[in-house]
Amino acid sequence: MSRTLPDLSLYLVMGAADTGKRPFEEVVLAAIEGGVTVVQLREKDADTRVLLEHALRLKALLEPRGVPLIVNDRIDVALAAGAAGVHLGQDDMPASIARRLVGEDMLIGLSVSDRVEADTANPDIVDYVGIGSVFPTGTKADAGEAIGPDFAAKLRRRVGLPAVAIGGINQTNLGQLRGTGIEGIAVVSAICAADDPRLAARNLRAGFLA
Amino acid sequence: MSRTLPDLSLYLVMGAADTGKRPFEEVVLAAIEGGVTVVQLREKDADTRVLLEHALRLKALLEPRGVPLIVNDRIDVALAAGAAGVHLGQDDMPASIARRLVGEDMLIGLSVSDRVEADTANPDIVDYVGIGSVFPTGTKADAGEAIGPDFAAKLRRRVGLPAVAIGGINQTNLGQLRGTGIEGIAVVSAICAADDPRLAARNLRAGFLA
Repeated sequence: MSRTLPDLSLYLVMGAADTGKRPFEEVVLAAIEGGVTVVQLREKDADTRVLLEHALRLKALLEPRGVPLIVNDRIDVALAAGAAGVHLGQDDMPASIARRLVGEDMLIGLSVSDRVEADTANPDIVDYVGIGSVFPTGTKADAGEAIGPDFAAKLRRRVGLPAVAIGGINQTNLGQLRGTGIEGIAVVSAICAADDPRLAARNLRAGFLA
Repeated sequence: MSRTLPDLSLYLVMGAADTGKRPFEEVVLAAIEGGVTVVQLREKDADTRVLLEHALRLKALLEPRGVPLIVNDRIDVALAAGAAGVHLGQDDMPASIARRLVGEDMLIGLSVSDRVEADTANPDIVDYVGIGSVFPTGTKADAGEAIGPDFAAKLRRRVGLPAVAIGGINQTNLGQLRGTGIEGIAVVSAICAADDPRLAARNLRAGFLA
């Protein structure tokens, strides 16, 4: 394959609505300065044109800084924006079909929350997984019950692919994820809702890598 | 170009929710027997996986009967399902980007409702337009005010592309669309909500082509 997996250690998931009154570029830029290594654009209710515009604006911000842009769910938007990858939930396009559409150069991430889902992650097709929700979260209405760090570690071993933990991760609980073998943490509100997204990102990354 | 424009005379727009308690295949099959010439799948709120499943089920129904499947908005789903085309609204992917993603074989339709939108329909990229809403409609919340048959005729002349009229068309008002130069009528509820979709389709087509 011709794609390289990025540093997954601090994976920001965001949409324009997540940054409240602040322009999303301002928050994302601060987050990158603080150490975010990947940005996933996730906007479930946006019109395609708006989503594409946001993807292009993000890409213009990320590319010069060497941070890859991942688009959630929407392969059409990922292709149109020239994103580095697409992230698929269990209700999105099946990964095998997605791989056919995006070719060999684009990263594919897959959300998994149990053993059955983990077993569907074909390492010939999927590049990394998102494991969660590890902790209770208010950001994603359909996230299901929290699986906890121990089970997340089991899923990481079972799936045998690089992974980010996601769901309710914050400065207080992230220590529970060290030693799980999971490569990174994915956050929304811990950065997007922080008074100082740059400091929040720096503390999250330092806390996880400590 | 390697694509052929289908007979646009009776263009059914539908999603699984539009057929109420009846399975959508039952309604679509009856509609085809009644003379529907194109089917567009439009489901704005469905998860990608569900939308793809519906597209594949529709395609299995339509292909043996020589009726092309158009997918609304979602280029990813159109590509994954092997649809004949994609229909773009003004809030969807810009047509020039869509053409790059779908290649030269897939049809692209574009919704236009005024002169400015009509003038964006590049005949090198777009194959046909949907003009509307011609009459007041309850099916599409964001359809805007009805433009009426006379203005629809003006837009048809201005755009210079094959067109379907859409919006609130029924057996009673379709006569007003004859002589407009518009090639076909697009309907949702006039078929999907009809007690007898086969008879409704037959009467609509006969009434329009009379």
